[in-house]
This record gives sequence, structure tokens and C-alpha cells, in this order.
Amino acid sequence: MIVKTEYFSQADIEKNGNKFIIGNGYLGYRGTLEEFRKTELVALNMPGVYDTLPGKWTDSVNAPNPFYTYLEILGCEGKKETEILHPLKSKIVSHKQGIILDEALHFRETVFQTSQGNLTVSSKRFVSSAYYPILGMEMNITPKNPMEIVINTGIDKEVWDQFGPHLESGEASVQNDVLIYVCRTKEKGLNLTVQEKIAYSPYYETYENIENFPDKLMRIIKVRLKRGETFKFTKLACITLNQAVEESLWGLRYQKHYLMHRNCFRERFNSANIQVEGDGLAQLGISYSIYHLLILAPHHKKSASIPARGLSGQVYKGAVFWDTEIFMFPFFVLTAPEVAKTLLRYRIDSLPKAIQKAQEFGFSGAYYPWESIEDGVDACSLFNVTDVFTNRPIRTYFKDKQIHISSAIVYALDRYFKYTGDFSFLTEDTMQVFYEVALFYYSRIYNSQWQDRYILTDVTGPDEYHERVDNNAYTNYMAHFSFEVFLKYYGLFWSINQKSIIRMEDLKSKLSQVLAKLYLPKPNKNNLIEQFDGYFALEDISIEELKKRQLHPNEYLGGAWGLASSTQLIKQADVLTMLWHFKEQFSLDVLKANYEYYSPRTLHTSSLSACMYGLVASLIGKLDDSYRFFLDSALIDYEGKGGKYAGGIYIGGTHPASSGGAYMLMVLGFAGVRFEGGKITVKPNLPPPIKGLKFTVNYLGKLYQIEIKGSTGSVTGVESM
Amino acid sequence: MIVKTEYFSQADIEKNGNKFIIGNGYLGYRGTLEEFRKTELVALNMPGVYDTLPGKWTDSVNAPNPFYTYLEILGCEGKKETEILHPLKSKIVSHKQGIILDEALHFRETVFQTSQGNLTVSSKRFVSSAYYPILGMEMNITPKNPMEIVINTGIDKEVWDQFGPHLESGEASVQNDVLIYVCRTKEKGLNLTVQEKIAYSPYYETYENIENFPDKLMRIIKVRLKRGETFKFTKLACITLNQAVEESLWGLRYQKHYLMHRNCFRERFNSANIQVEGDGLAQLGISYSIYHLLILAPHHKKSASIPARGLSGQVYKGAVFWDTEIFMFPFFVLTAPEVAKTLLRYRIDSLPKAIQKAQEFGFSGAYYPWESIEDGVDACSLFNVTDVFTNRPIRTYFKDKQIHISSAIVYALDRYFKYTGDFSFLTEDTMQVFYEVALFYYSRIYNSQWQDRYILTDVTGPDEYHERVDNNAYTNYMAHFSFEVFLKYYGLFWSINQKSIIRMEDLKSKLSQVLAKLYLPKPNKNNLIEQFDGYFALEDISIEELKKRQLHPNEYLGGAWGLASSTQLIKQADVLTMLWHFKEQFSLDVLKANYEYYSPRTLHTSSLSACMYGLVASLIGKLDDSYRFFLDSALIDYEGKGGKYAGGIYIGGTHPASSGGAYMLMVLGFAGVRFEGGKITVKPNLPPPIKGLKFTVNYLGKLYQIEIKGSTGSVTGVESM
Repeated sequence: MIVKTEYFSQADIEKNGNKFIIGNGYLGYRGTLEEFRKTELVALNMPGVYDTLPGKWTDSVNAPNPFYTYLEILGCEGKKETEILHPLKSKIVSHKQGIILDEALHFRETVFQTSQGNLTVSSKRFVSSAYYPILGMEMNITPKNPMEIVINTGIDKEVWDQFGPHLESGEASVQNDVLIYVCRTKEKGLNLTVQEKIAYSPYYETYENIENFPDKLMRIIKVRLKRGETFKFTKLACITLNQAVEESLWGLRYQKHYLMHRNCFRERFNSANIQVEGDGLAQLGISYSIYHLLILAPHHKKSASIPARGLSGQVYKGAVFWDTEIFMFPFFVLTAPEVAKTLLRYRIDSLPKAIQKAQEFGFSGAYYPWESIEDGVDACSLFNVTDVFTNRPIRTYFKDKQIHISSAIVYALDRYFKYTGDFSFLTEDTMQVFYEVALFYYSRIYNSQWQDRYILTDVTGPDEYHERVDNNAYTNYMAHFSFEVFLKYYGLFWSINQKSIIRMEDLKSKLSQVLAKLYLPKPNKNNLIEQFDGYFALEDISIEELKKRQLHPNEYLGGAWGLASSTQLIKQADVLTMLWHFKEQFSLDVLKANYEYYSPRTLHTSSLSACMYGLVASLIGKLDDSYRFFLDSALIDYEGKGGKYAGGIYIGGTHPASSGGAYMLMVLGFAGVRFEGGKITVKPNLPPPIKGLKFTVNYLGKLYQIEIKGSTGSVTGVESM
Repeated sequence: MIVKTEYFSQADIEKNGNKFIIGNGYLGYRGTLEEFRKTELVALNMPGVYDTLPGKWTDSVNAPNPFYTYLEILGCEGKKETEILHPLKSKIVSHKQGIILDEALHFRETVFQTSQGNLTVSSKRFVSSAYYPILGMEMNITPKNPMEIVINTGIDKEVWDQFGPHLESGEASVQNDVLIYVCRTKEKGLNLTVQEKIAYSPYYETYENIENFPDKLMRIIKVRLKRGETFKFTKLACITLNQAVEESLWGLRYQKHYLMHRNCFRERFNSANIQVEGDGLAQLGISYSIYHLLILAPHHKKSASIPARGLSGQVYKGAVFWDTEIFMFPFFVLTAPEVAKTLLRYRIDSLPKAIQKAQEFGFSGAYYPWESIEDGVDACSLFNVTDVFTNRPIRTYFKDKQIHISSAIVYALDRYFKYTGDFSFLTEDTMQVFYEVALFYYSRIYNSQWQDRYILTDVTGPDEYHERVDNNAYTNYMAHFSFEVFLKYYGLFWSINQKSIIRMEDLKSKLSQVLAKLYLPKPNKNNLIEQFDGYFALEDISIEELKKRQLHPNEYLGGAWGLASSTQLIKQADVLTMLWHFKEQFSLDVLKANYEYYSPRTLHTSSLSACMYGLVASLIGKLDDSYRFFLDSALIDYEGKGGKYAGGIYIGGTHPASSGGAYMLMVLGFAGVRFEGGKITVKPNLPPPIKGLKFTVNYLGKLYQIEIKGSTGSVTGVESM
């Protein structure tokens, strides 16, 4: 399956950089052209590798680009000047760019019009799924007329940075025809090594030279081509961090690496992909979403996670959010449980930092970071948005008040055990996470003796436009859930050390009285659950009215002074997310009433919103709505529709949580798959355009093929290989 | 004692309107000239009379001006045009304006240069302290050369309004030579009647006519004056609301009214005034402050209070703040206990609305209004400041979070009983206030089981720049005090009805466990008390640094996004106010340490700040500081130094709380007067320029004269008259 564009437009550079991204969890390569540099947002993003300059926000590190390439046509017989070919300056006759989904292969083909006639440049590029530090590219150059061409190709030392520069300028060298550029990250002094090696047929008449410029380390290859003759070269590159490259990798040729990568990725893709019957658009949407999730999967480590903007750059500091546990995790646990485990291990390993954060804010237990970077440090700033009117940072209450983050870890862990049955993972460390999260909420709840109930005050729920609210329904239910989960696994777990037992027994006895009296906002007489105390008393305006009041298109609508904050307009699914998580506790009438109430009041300015509305729409039989929300989730990066600014801050990039949401919506919503008591059931809610679905899931260590046809479905065990 | 200016400047019009204000508690007349109209901020403000237009803020009503007067010089022999005399247009040879403090009399004398030679206009004006609806004026007009003069004098129907217009245009009539203008307030349709009657010697050669213009009802008096001859007229006016005027009042001449007023006010002034030895500036400051407090005293009612901007206009909605109970009350209870009782009755009568407000915000008991208008309705908006950058209202947490207001009522009531011994005032109603306020705080505190303590979260303390904080020291101590006070008076009180006893016994038993565990922030190892949880962790910048960061001179520094909010810079005394209230509980070292710490971090952008710093400075022997703070408090309106804007909102006017603070500072600070166990003691802390003080106070129903000389003092009982 191919996703591509058939024209070139400067306006699409940012969008296509996201749309045609490739990656392997270790490294992401944006969908940019070989001629591009940092001004065109080229980025070889290294998730999990961070650098922070004094007084600035953290970024994940972007590596120098070893595929930087541009062509020059030499003037005929010395009469004319050299002509540089560049998509932004040259005349383009035709242009194609895209990715082959099941190969995770980027391609482009551009026909330039030159003074000496047309010239075709085509290339392919992959980031190896088989050997994570390896990237490969292949380029073919075909002039229509005889031409003398200079191919400039090498390592672009300049990188795109949001809050950089993060790399000290480094050392260039050449060893065994390998270009090597070694630079160091500024904060921690990590050695980042970029190497590249090219190959082309010795039969061409070429002249090659290597030059080290301040901003690039380049091979300059002059070649004289006949009419219609093609010059083809391949390049392997390797990007490593504080690490030597296995020499053997260089021994393999480009084609071998390509095939290993392709076979590896294709297998992953095919086993995860969903076959949609009767609806090409939905097929595109789900396959494209699955592609995005697969290129993010961290196969290179046992403990790693996925940033909220995937591998598309440094937005949101390259940090890990609840996006992973709530929105992407279901995909991984159902299609690649080992990856799901890797994601969870990252959080288990982060526990000490979460405990530290709770203490920093005056509480106990584990308060996970809102924006998690290495070891679970919180990269979130207390001033996380910029005011467009004064250009000043705005105090936001994400880091210190969005306490539902800790429950997301518990939610994913619980899902892991529920879906995999892999209780070997219920180690002392895992149990500590359950305990510390429960302890955190225990230290965070207060008892109002006057009302004889426990409450959770001063929180920010999923709807970030309303900060510092009391008794946010989502947060209260998730805290309650965290208490229950702790008690459940504590009851299952026996190999705990003596010191832990004393602490856990103590918490267990304290929770016994809290559980019954923790305030869980219930449906009112209209079946509505109030998002937080006082929400229904806020001004009830339409989205149109809000837009009329805006003075600036990018002004921040949330926070204390934002336009939405004093109204019932919300950023994203909040009560609806709670209803999805705890759907068994509510009647269909409650689901319907809340869906109807909150829908027109939701701006969906978070990419985490549409799938939750879609899931609830599935439950209540609003199939047209669920289909629309599916397309919104699945095609956000295909269409480049994600928000670009929060206040004055650029927030563009890919939206893997949205991709994960599309998967959830198709499997749990449309197919209505449920896993309960060792059994898989289906209760299809296919939207009209979709006639059938076919896919495979892992459950309790086994593979099952699920096939939906209209309103019926079947679940079949698959022989494991 | 006279306070005056000896020149005219347009730039001083706003300032002088406040500086030279006269009033009688029922009515305030700003220090404007007779020629002035609403553009010059003429206002006859009626405190306690409110009007609110739909969607706008409340204003206290300004009445039409019955003293509006301007002169015209007729051209000689028909050759020249009529010449209107007006301070803003005519040439002024000399000008004086001022007030006689002990007469509460406004005067002005202006020599105009006209084309026919100089002309002197002088006037006097008072608002009667003896008969509250009555005002009087006298005007003398003396040309240097013979002139034909037209005196236009009558009722200016146009009034200065901030969020008006509040008056429907009304009906004009003339009865028995009395001009009568009856209009109605827009919201409630109250009848506002303005009447005026003039008198002058029948010996002048005059021609008088009355004309009713759309904007004014005027007498037009033509008089031909000889060289140096003076035309004098007097005017009595009467401003009533839904009320007939006693005809007998008109029977009295101007001079009689003037004398009655003067005698009445002079007695009040002399009995309250403090004689300062050796320091004319301090004498001016304290007498001027006492003047301002006396013209505000509501003698016309048994239940009334004083707006935060006195009678100077509509700023702060003409509403009553904690300014009255904490800052003005000490003056009244010591010099005029009957007035103190009137102020308290206003709050006791407001109890039902305070109970309603608590319920509105989800709590129980009595939550007094932050900005109290009639019956105790809260005029405070949830958006009480305007953003200068977007011109939008800013969400402020004054109304819903500044819960210390209820404790201020309790504090003043307790002081009343302590200072007067008048337990006849401990009625069922008064006891209910103690009970409901204690109940309010009880419903507002939470128990953190984890920390085993009761806390007060999400409040705004006196320092309004830091909203929504937890465990504000001032608020927690005052809540604790409110609990104690309830228990104390409940123990003293026996005539309570059965239903109340059950409720009060119940609260009493609940409070027994709360009292010991309510968290009262204690001095840390550096003797510092943290203003609220996390305050010491805020950015610690200098005031200069803050000013450098300002983008707009009037930008609001507080609230969620204000520049001060994320720093340790505070608006006003907060911990220092707490330390003053509970000084017996803290060592001198603690007082000193906190004074030194918070002083450089306080912007004093509230007029409630200086006196509290001055009082603590007195206690710790920083006499130069206490003197400086005294002058800041006492002369704020004399010098016109009060803030003019909070965000985009005009907040000018007089500062009676600051006047009250000056009184506290001199009596309780400089003189060190204490009232304990039926005894008055003094412990003088006179700042160097002051050699002695002499004044009279009421204590336990008796008058005492206190005389301070240097570091010694005497207290002498005075025979009651």
C-alpha cells in the first residue's frame, strides 16, 4: 500500500515531513527531500535522547543528516554557469513523493527542467527495522540529454532545533571511504557519530573528491552521463550514540540491508494490519495509522517509550505523555505484547523519579511526569504555553495538577495483565508501581467532614482548558480505579518483601474506609455527569460564539484567562474518556445523554479527543458519528490537519495517539471486541461504508483471528508459529 | 485647621476632587468647583444607594448637583459678546481652594481676569452634619469694575457615572421658589429628589428667570454691580430618596444651618482629634485622616457602613470591603462607639445574604460578600479586572476565594465587645453571626488524613496578587480565631433559642477536634512564616526587576498570568497583617525576621498595606520606618498618591482605610495603647519628630484622656458630660 503525493508545493513541506516519515523506534527520518536542510525541517530525530540548554526547554536530539544530497549541472563547454538543482528554486516538470506502507520505504521521483534538458532524480530510503543504527538510501539520476553532473552528497552538520543548538560542532574524518562525523550533545556530552558510505558501479567515468565544509562534510562526484543513461548510487549510514558500530554491518551491501529491513517490517505490518472490506478510505486510514504506530515501536531496547509526536521532531520536548498508555498501548498489547512490555518497563524504571516528583509537590507516592523524558524526569514547564499578546510564558497547571497521569500507568499495567495473562511481569517492581500510585492518590485526597466524603481538589483533568478544578469526574474515577487495582494485585501477589508488606498492609487498611466515600460524580436527573464541580454553572456558549470572541487565531483558549476557561467549551473528551473506561458502570441512557451534551461543547483541539467520542458513539449506535471520528483520528497526519500552535508555541508533528485511537475505534468500537474471563467476544457496530473487517490479536499468549461480516463476527484461534 | 491649594491646575482636578471632599455619611460632595460638570468628575455620591444596569457593574448613585453655578459678564453697551467665566477657559489671576477640617467646610476663591477687569468669586459649601439631607452654599461675587453679570445657578441634571447612566431623566418644577428636580434610578425606580432654594438681599437690582434645559434646571439672575460691590447669595439644597422633606427645614436660613452643622461637626472633630506635639506634618496627617473618617460616619441610620472609596465616587461599586472592619473600625470603636455599632449592625443585618453566598459556592454558614452592597449582596464580579492588552475582563478569585472576609466581621465584633463591654449587643442575631462564620470555615476546611491535619485550600489571602493558594497563613489563623471566638461567646451567651442550641452544640463538639489540628503555619528555622504553601519556592526577584518586565504601566500584576503571581513579590501586607492581629503569639525575633523578609518584597499597591507594616515596625522599634509608613497612610489623599488603575479599571478616590490605618498607627503603634482586662496601658514608640501626643478614647463606656510625652505616658479618666 502506497501513500503519496504527485506534485510539489512549498506549502506542503512541513505537512509532508510528517506524512511521509519513516523510522524504526530508534530513529525517525522526516519525509523531506534529499536537497533539504534545516530550514525545510529535515530531522533525524532520536527519541529518548535529550538535551537541555540553560533556561530553555528540553528537546530530543536531531542527528546530522547523512543523506543530504544535491545535484549540479555543469555548463556545456564552459560557456554557461553551473546550475544547481533544488526543488525550491528549479523548475519542476513532475514530482512524486511517498511511502510504501508495508516496507516503511520513502521514495521520491522528480523531473527537473534544466537549461540542458530534463533530468530525473529518484530515490528510496529506509531506516532499518532489522539493525537499528542503520539507514539506507538509493538514488538514480537520469538526464534526458548528455550532461556533466556533480553529485554533492554527504553529511549535513546543521540540524533543525527548536530550543537548540544541541550539538557542539564536531570532528570530521574519512576512514576506509567512510565519512565520519562525531559531535557531542551540549548538556551531557554524549558522543553522536554519523557515518556514511556510498557505492556505485566502477564502470561510470567519475571523479570523486571529499570536502569538509564548516556546515557539511561532502563527497563531490563528477560524472558525465549519456542521453538517457542512469547513474545509480546507494548509501548506507549509521547513527550511533556513545557506541561503536559493529564493523560487520558495513560488510553487508545496501540491497541486503534493504531486504532484511523490508522482510522484518513487512511481517510486523501484515500481522498487525486490519483488512477492511468495502471501504478504501477506511482501509487507508487504518493501515496508515498502523504504519505510524509500527515505525515508533521501540524494538531496540527493553525499556523505552514513545513521544507524543512520535519521531517527527522535537515538539513537546520529545517527551512521553499519557498518550502512550491510554491511546497507543491497546494497539501494542494486542498486536505486539513484547513492545507493550517495553513501554511499561519504561514507567516501572521511572518510579524513583515519580516518587521524587510527588515529594516535590508536597505529596507521597508516585506522581508520574506529565512530560516524561529520560529516567522519568518531568520536562513539563510550569509555564507551558506562550501568550500571543505579550509573548510571555503563561502559567499552566499541567505539570503540577494533571494528576490523572499516574492512573494511566496503572490502567495500562492492568490492561497488560488482563490481555496477556503474563503474571511473570507482576514482579516486586511492578507491584511497587501499583502501591506508590495508590499512595499518591491517598495523600492527595481530602476528607470533607462537613460533607462526609473524600474529594480530589485542585486538579486539571484531560480537558486542559479548565485548570485547577475540584472533583474532575475523570480524575476521581481513575483515582478510585487505582485504589481498586492496587488492592486487586496486592491480593494476587505473594513474594513481597517484609518491609513492603508492612507499608502495603497499612495503605490497604486506610483505603478500606476511603473507597466507599471517595466522591464519584454520578449522573444527575438528566443523566449528565458534571465534568467538575461547578462546570454546569459556567457560561454555555457555542463554538461559533467563542470564535467570534477570539482576537488572535493562535491565542490560548485555556488557562486562567483563556476564552474557553469561563465557558462550558472544552478542549477534548473528558467525561467521555471516563465513560469509555468505565462503560460497564453506566447505562446506555447515561452514555447517550453525555455524548449529546458534551459533543457540541467539545472543540477537539487535542488529537486525543475524536477517538473517545468515536468509541462512545459506537456504543450508543451513532455509527455515522463513530465513522467520522474514525476518519478524523486515522487521517490526521495524512491530511495534515493537526493543530499547529498552542498559544505561541509550535506543536506540529505526527499524532501517534490519534493513530492508536483509530485502532481502538476499529477493533473495540466497530468490531466491538471484548476480552473478558479468558474469552474474546465481538459485538459489531460497523458503520455503513464498512462491510467487513479481518485482523489478528494476541490474547492470553495466543493469536486469534477475528473476522467481522456485517453484524456478525467470528473469533478463531490461530496456530502459533 | 485648613487644607488648601493656592493655584489652579487642570491636572489636579481629579486629585482635588478627593482631597477637598466634604460629606456627612449620607452624602459626599467631591472637591470640585461650582462651574464643573460631569467631565470634571463632579459627584454628589450617595453611599448605600445602588443601581445596576443589565450586564454592567454596580455603581452607587450620584445625585444631580444643586450647586452648579457659572457666571457670565454681559458686553458693555451691547458692543461685545457675552463672556462666560470658567476656570478651564478663562484667565485666572489667583485661585484658592480648600477645606476647613474642623468645620467640614469647602471653600474656594478665584480671581478671574475678564475683558472688563478682574472679578472675584468666592464660595463656601457644607453638607450638614446636623440634618443629613441638607447642603448649603454661599457665594460672593465682586467685580473690580462696574459690570453686568449673569449668575446661572441651579441643578445640573447630568451626573458622572462609571457604569451608568443610572438616572432616568426626570421632572422639573418650581414650588414656592424652590427648584425641584425629581428623577428615578433605573434599576429599582427609587425617587431621587433634588431641591434648591436661594436667598439674596432684595436691595440688589436684579432680574431673575428660571429655565428648564434638557441637561439643567437653572436660575438666571442678572445683576448690575458697581465697582467693588459684592453680590452675595446663599443656597440651601436638599437631596432625598423616596422621602418627603420636612418643610420646617426650609424654614431655617442658611446661616442657621451652617452654624448647626459647624457646631455638630466641630464637636465630633475635637473629641476625636489627636494633638501632636512638635511635628506639624504628622499633625496634618492625623487630623486630615480623622477628618476623612468623620465625614464618612453614618449618623443618619442605625445600620449602615462605609464604602472602600468613602464618598468620593463610584469606584469599587461604592461597596463595603473588609476595609471597614479591619482598618476603619478601630477608630470608630475608640472615638464613636455608636457609629461602630451602626457599622456592625450592617453586617449583622446582612447575615441572610452571607448564608446565601456560602450555599451558592457549595458551603455552609456565612460567607460575607467581598464587595458588599445593599442587604449584603456581593457586587464583586468573578471578572474584576480588565486586561490592558486585550481589553478583556480577567477572571479574578476575589469573590469566591477571599474567604478571610467573614473573619473580619468576627474580628470587629470581638473588638467591639472587648473595647466597649457593651454586652447588650450580644443578642441572638450577633451570636448567629459568630456561629454562621464558624460554620462556614468548618465547611471549608478539609482533613488530610495522610498529614493528620486540617487545611484550608484554594483561597486568596490579603495579598491579591497570589490567588488560589493553599494554607494562607492569614486566612488559617483568622479561621482558627473565628472558631475560638464562636466558642468564647457561645460560652457567655445564654438566651439562645432551643433550635439554635442544638446546632451550636453540634458545631462546638465538632470544633473540639478541629481546633488542635487546624494547620497554623509556624515560623521556620529562620523565624519566617510562609505566606502560603510553596511561597518560598517562587521566583525571588526585586521590585526593580518586576518593573523592567512590565510591558504596560497599568498591566495587572496579579491573577494567574500576572507578572507578580509567579514571584515572591506581593501586593500588600499579608503575613504582616496576621502578625499584627496575633502579635501576642509571636516573639520579637519572629516579628523582626518577617518584617525584614517581606518588606522588600511588598509593592504596597494596596492602601491597606502601609499601616500594617508601620504597626509591626512600631513593635520592633523601627521607628523611622513606622513614621514613614504613617505618612504614607495619612497623606495618601492629601498627596493624591493612591493607585489610579488596576488593570484597565479606574480605582481612584479617597482611601478611608488608609486614614483608619494612620489612626491605628498613631494610637496603637506610636502611643502603644493596649486595652486588656479593663485597663488601658501605654508603651510609647514615638518616632523622633513627634515629641508628644494627646487624645481621648472610649473604653468600657468611659472616656479616657491619654497623654504621651517622649517615652512616658499617662491615662486619665475623663468625667463624662
